[in-house]
Amino acid sequence: FEQRMFDASKLPAVTLDGAAVILRANIEKVDEVKLVRENSASGVGLFRTEFLYLSDNRVPSEEEQYAAYKAVAEAFPDEPVVIRTLDLGGDKPMTGNPDLFPEESNPFLGFRAIRFCLEHKEIFKDQLRAILRASAHGKVQLMYPMISGSEELARANAVLEECRAELKKDGVAFDAKMAVGAMIEIPSAAVTADILAKECDFFSIGTNDLIQYLLAIDRVNDRIAHLYEPTHPAVLRTIKQIVDEAHRQKIKVSVCGEMAGDPVYVPLLLGLGVDELSMTPPLLPAVKYLVRAMKMSEAKKLAKDALELTSPKEIYALADKFCRERVKSE
Amino acid sequence: FEQRMFDASKLPAVTLDGAAVILRANIEKVDEVKLVRENSASGVGLFRTEFLYLSDNRVPSEEEQYAAYKAVAEAFPDEPVVIRTLDLGGDKPMTGNPDLFPEESNPFLGFRAIRFCLEHKEIFKDQLRAILRASAHGKVQLMYPMISGSEELARANAVLEECRAELKKDGVAFDAKMAVGAMIEIPSAAVTADILAKECDFFSIGTNDLIQYLLAIDRVNDRIAHLYEPTHPAVLRTIKQIVDEAHRQKIKVSVCGEMAGDPVYVPLLLGLGVDELSMTPPLLPAVKYLVRAMKMSEAKKLAKDALELTSPKEIYALADKFCRERVKSE
Ligand SMILES: [Mg+2]
Ligand SMILES: [Mg+2]
Repeated sequence: FEQRMFDASKLPAVTLDGAAVILRANIEKVDEVKLVRENSASGVGLFRTEFLYLSDNRVPSEEEQYAAYKAVAEAFPDEPVVIRTLDLGGDKPMTGNPDLFPEESNPFLGFRAIRFCLEHKEIFKDQLRAILRASAHGKVQLMYPMISGSEELARANAVLEECRAELKKDGVAFDAKMAVGAMIEIPSAAVTADILAKECDFFSIGTNDLIQYLLAIDRVNDRIAHLYEPTHPAVLRTIKQIVDEAHRQKIKVSVCGEMAGDPVYVPLLLGLGVDELSMTPPLLPAVKYLVRAMKMSEAKKLAKDALELTSPKEIYALADKFCRERVKSE
Repeated sequence: FEQRMFDASKLPAVTLDGAAVILRANIEKVDEVKLVRENSASGVGLFRTEFLYLSDNRVPSEEEQYAAYKAVAEAFPDEPVVIRTLDLGGDKPMTGNPDLFPEESNPFLGFRAIRFCLEHKEIFKDQLRAILRASAHGKVQLMYPMISGSEELARANAVLEECRAELKKDGVAFDAKMAVGAMIEIPSAAVTADILAKECDFFSIGTNDLIQYLLAIDRVNDRIAHLYEPTHPAVLRTIKQIVDEAHRQKIKVSVCGEMAGDPVYVPLLLGLGVDELSMTPPLLPAVKYLVRAMKMSEAKKLAKDALELTSPKEIYALADKFCRERVKSE
C-alpha cells in the first residue's frame, strides 16, 4: 500500500470521473519547503507565521519576516503561498511576553490572533508590510485568522490599505492584486458567510477551531474529547453553508484543519463542495491516493446522504465505509 | 417614570396592538419567590439549582433538593416553574471538590453542566428524582443546560426515563406529563434546532453563552469585551432560526439570558418571534412597561429591518432608538 501511495503521489490529484482536486500543504517553518515539494503539493495553503515570534519569544522585525516569506514565495513560483497573519494567543501564547499576552481564564475564547493584531497595530503593520513585499516575489496570498464578522475584516483591511499606501509612497514593490482571504473558524463568521464572501477573495475553513466553537468543546480537554465530533450534523451543515455562500460570490473555499488531511473526511469535504484541501505534507500521499480512487459524483452522493442523517456516529460510519471501500478496491 | 413603571407592573403584559407577552422570572434561591410575586412575573422561567451545590460546597441529597423544588413549585400553583438541571463548571466550579471539578485550561469550553451530569449519573439521578417528585406539587418543567446535539439530549432523557420508572415502581407521585426542554446556548444546538425541536417540549435560549460561543468571546475577559455584541447579525440570524424551527414543530421559545431583561433588546427578541422572556425579577417592571408601550407589529418590522443590516453597531442603534421612542412617548 505504501508503494501504491508513493506511486500515486507523483500523479495528478484527479478523481476517477475527472475532477481535479487541489491539494496544498500546511507549513510552519521555511525549511519545510523541501517536504512540500517531495510530497508534490500544489503550493502552500497555510503558512503559519507564529514560529517567527515563538522561536526566540520576541517580536521579529519586518526584515526578518520579509526574508522568511520571500524564501517560501520564491520556492513556489507557479503556485500560491497563502500566508496567515499572526495567530498567537489561545494555546500559543508568547510565554516570555506577559505584557503582550497576559494570562487568561479561557484563552481559546480570548485575546488572540486578529484580535491581538488589531490592538497592536505596529506589530501587525510590520507583518503586513513584510507579506506585501514578499508578494513581489511569487504568488503570495494573505489570510486573517479568527475573523468574527465583517467589521473586524474591514478594520484589518484598512490597516492593510495603510501599508499598501506606505509602500507605494516609498516606491517598494508589491503585488497590488494579492488575494486577501479570511479564515472561517468562528461560528459567527460562518453564519455571516454571505456578507464576508463579498469582502474576501477566498475563504479557508479552519475546522479545528470551527468545530471547537460550534460544539463548545476544548479539544485538548481529555474529559470531553469524546464530544469533539467532526461528523456532528452541525459541522457538516455549517461547512455546506460556508461553501454555498462562497460559491454564490464566486470565491473558492479551502479547508486547512485536520479534517482536510484525514482520508475519512476528505470525500465528505469534497462532496460538500470544498475546492481545496491543505494539510501537513506527510499526509498528502494518502489523500491523493484516495482522491484518485474515488469519483466526485460518489462524494457528492455521500455528502447528500450524510446531510440527511442526525447522528454523528452514523455519519462517521458512512464516511469511514466510503473511504475503506475506495482504498481496498485495488 | 419609576411610578409609571410601578403602575404598569400590576397590569397585564400586553402590547398596544393586543399581543400578550409572557414575562417570567429567573431565580437562584428559594427565598426569591417573594421577589417574583412582587414583580408580578408569570411564574419562574429559570430556576437555577447551583446554589444547593455551592452554598456548602457539597452535593445535596435528593431530599434536600426535593424540599427546595417543591417549595418553589407550590409558591406558583398556576404558573410554570422551569427548573434547570445542574449547570456547574465553567465559571461556577465547586471549588471544594477538585475530584469532581478539576482545573481546566478553558473552563467555558469544558466539563460542565449536562456533560458533568451524564458522567456522574448518581448525582444527576438524585436531582432528576427530586425534580420529578416536585412536579406532583405544581406546574414544574425541566430543562437541560448546554445541550450540544440530539444524542446528548437522548442520553439525558434516558436517565430521566430510568428515574420515572423507579418512582413509578416505588409508588411515588410525579407529573407524568412534565414538560422537558433544552437550553439552546451552544451553536451546534442552534444549527440542529430542527432535529432537537422534535425531541423537546420547549426551547430556552441562553443568550449569554450562545453569544459567547458564536463569537468565540469570553465575555468576562476585559480585553475583548468590546467584541461581545448581542446585535451581531450572526446572533440575530441564529435566534431567528431557532425560533422558526421551534414554531415549525409547534413548541415555544423562551429567552433567559441577559438580553431578555434589557429593554433595548426586548422588542428585537419579540419581533424575531420569541414567545417568552425570563429575567431577574427587578428588571420585570421596566420590560413590562416597554411591552405595554409598543406594538407587536412594530417589533416585527424592527426585527425585519435589523436582519437586513450587517453592522452590529447599526443594529444596536436601531433597537436603541425603538426603545427610547416608546419609553419617552408618554
Ligand atoms: Mg484556528
Ligand atoms: Mg449557560
